[in-house]
Amino acid sequence: MSEAESTPLEEKLTAPVRAAIDESAYGSWRSIATEDAVSLSFGFPDPDLFPQSGLAESVDAVLAEEGDEALQYGAGEYREELRSYLVEQERERGIDFDTHDLLVTNGATHAIDTVCRAFLDPGDTIIVEAPTFMGILGVFRNFGVDIVSVPVDEDGMIVEQLAAKLRHRRERGAEPPTFAYTIPDFHNPTGTTLSRERRERLLELAEEYDFGVLEDGAYSDLWLDAEAPPPLATMTDSERVIRVGSFAKTLAPGVRMGWLTAPKRIQEATETVAAGGTNTFTESFVGHYCESGQLDDNLPAIREAYRAKRDHMLDELEENMPAEVEWTEPAGGFFVWVTLPESVDAEAMLESAAEAGVTYLPGPMFYPGDGGENALRLSFTYVKKDEITAGIEALAASIAQAR
Amino acid sequence: MSEAESTPLEEKLTAPVRAAIDESAYGSWRSIATEDAVSLSFGFPDPDLFPQSGLAESVDAVLAEEGDEALQYGAGEYREELRSYLVEQERERGIDFDTHDLLVTNGATHAIDTVCRAFLDPGDTIIVEAPTFMGILGVFRNFGVDIVSVPVDEDGMIVEQLAAKLRHRRERGAEPPTFAYTIPDFHNPTGTTLSRERRERLLELAEEYDFGVLEDGAYSDLWLDAEAPPPLATMTDSERVIRVGSFAKTLAPGVRMGWLTAPKRIQEATETVAAGGTNTFTESFVGHYCESGQLDDNLPAIREAYRAKRDHMLDELEENMPAEVEWTEPAGGFFVWVTLPESVDAEAMLESAAEAGVTYLPGPMFYPGDGGENALRLSFTYVKKDEITAGIEALAASIAQAR
Repeated sequence: MSEAESTPLEEKLTAPVRAAIDESAYGSWRSIATEDAVSLSFGFPDPDLFPQSGLAESVDAVLAEEGDEALQYGAGEYREELRSYLVEQERERGIDFDTHDLLVTNGATHAIDTVCRAFLDPGDTIIVEAPTFMGILGVFRNFGVDIVSVPVDEDGMIVEQLAAKLRHRRERGAEPPTFAYTIPDFHNPTGTTLSRERRERLLELAEEYDFGVLEDGAYSDLWLDAEAPPPLATMTDSERVIRVGSFAKTLAPGVRMGWLTAPKRIQEATETVAAGGTNTFTESFVGHYCESGQLDDNLPAIREAYRAKRDHMLDELEENMPAEVEWTEPAGGFFVWVTLPESVDAEAMLESAAEAGVTYLPGPMFYPGDGGENALRLSFTYVKKDEITAGIEALAASIAQAR
Repeated sequence: MSEAESTPLEEKLTAPVRAAIDESAYGSWRSIATEDAVSLSFGFPDPDLFPQSGLAESVDAVLAEEGDEALQYGAGEYREELRSYLVEQERERGIDFDTHDLLVTNGATHAIDTVCRAFLDPGDTIIVEAPTFMGILGVFRNFGVDIVSVPVDEDGMIVEQLAAKLRHRRERGAEPPTFAYTIPDFHNPTGTTLSRERRERLLELAEEYDFGVLEDGAYSDLWLDAEAPPPLATMTDSERVIRVGSFAKTLAPGVRMGWLTAPKRIQEATETVAAGGTNTFTESFVGHYCESGQLDDNLPAIREAYRAKRDHMLDELEENMPAEVEWTEPAGGFFVWVTLPESVDAEAMLESAAEAGVTYLPGPMFYPGDGGENALRLSFTYVKKDEITAGIEALAASIAQAR
């Protein structure tokens, strides 16, 4: 917003919003798609797994059974059934609904944004993994907060590095962070999972240094080998954890439904700030769909499809990658994180990679500050197996050329 | 949140959110519905006017024609068609899309909330009509702003009273307000319409005192006698006006779709803060529905139905109300505003009114501060004609008893 004179109304935008407009991450990554290259860029589900006819049937059933009520303010019973279904799911994960409550949201990002609105004042500090979900960095920027980033290895966030940072902050008299944002299960973008020991240690630190934990479970149901350790929200009685879930990866992104579970009074606070309400008609037909058991019934097939794709991508990496290239072996989720030789700049390589026939997201996008220059994220879920083959071969050729 | 000891996480909620939780308006008005009384309380559309089969057909058509794309991130062409349809509608109203742009939102409240997020810092001042849409007062409270309220008469906001307040504020060196929130067409809750002269004067004041105008057009398409004067957004070149629209009253609340049009760079800012995105599948089937022409085709029948109900309510008021009771005669929208003799407290009367067979919303709910003690809002859209008859008779009896 700097190229022309500001209008009077622009002058009134909040300072964090003015700063965020310039930094907006989404604009840049959308432009990377090219028609002729295999896209390993986007964290899109496999569209062949979308339950089109099931959702259409649920729309018809809700309208037939509930009539006008389904379209009125408040909606009808099926909306309640969505909530009951989600509460039951979360209870099965181990969340205590005597002390916790659930809020349905317009997607997981909306849930996280709502938590931010409840808690963040400009100048507050939050903790994130580095790398982390790039889309959420834009959300955090809107709040004008300081971001402390903690590196990730094969067991997720390196919690002892967080401990050191917290110790230093305390020594110099800094305020406690507001919360730590983590994707403990099948992390975006690295595919790694936070170990049970580190989960326990993170919760100890939250207690010792007085911060909350915002646990993003967007990929939790998409375990491919074995379930992840229990949610952080179930491992403590301290009422410090807010857990976020999403239908985007298991049902379809287009329904834009997510939820959060939080200690009761925190849920109340998020409900107060989640202005405008949710899409009650969508809640109704998704509720019908879930209650029919179809979502649960589909999960094994979804896991099977992604397991095959993941295995194929790992095989192709093994077969094609030059020496000195490393990659993660995700036990679930959507992503493989590739680390190139230090001399290779993943962002600079993208243009030639696209010409060679593959696109990916360069590492720096996932860092709140510097980092990830020689890394990139691959998604194995959206593409077909032969595209994975072609994409990894093109990537290998590009790396060989760039070294 | 005061009755028990706060948990550590609660202590971290922002100050405006902590204050807002206690004041939350929605809790109280929901509790007024009673099963045996005619509800003239809620601003609900007539459910008989919901296009159930049309929407179901659009869902099927979108899934058949676009397949998986309709459920994927970004969605397909029909989502674009919604945008094109809305741009065309707004252009026909007179909005200049060389200088303005449109953002689709999860309902009008979400649009307004998004504008607040872009502009409001705690301690800022905004201007509202008194009375005004009670649901939005809760949204404004979340931002910890000061509210200047301006009375309403039969020609809408009494703009000269605003002028006087602005003059006094300037004299004592106060900062300019950030924006004035107004519902110029068929106002909620009074049903009045801001005259063309007052629109011009309000825009002059915005220029002179440097504030924006947030124009809520939720009822603009629901004129019953004649269209309202042109939108404020079309009456100035100063790029100070943001206009909000809604599908809740003309299509169905359940689809939870709204939009805003704003000067381009303001639209950019709102897009940046509208985190989480919109419900792209709903946008797709609503887009299909609108492009098919069905929404436009239905509007005359919707107006006809509401015109008959409004006329009937005004007739019944004329026939039944005791002397000293006054009411507005709305040229559109959903509401009649009734002013009782000064000695009658509308809130205190509600219990006996419910027993007599009618509920309404008491005036004070619509005021950011004191006011409206002897006033109440009636909605004529949701109920059937015979319910209007019974409701107004019960109301007349209650007032006679309360005087």
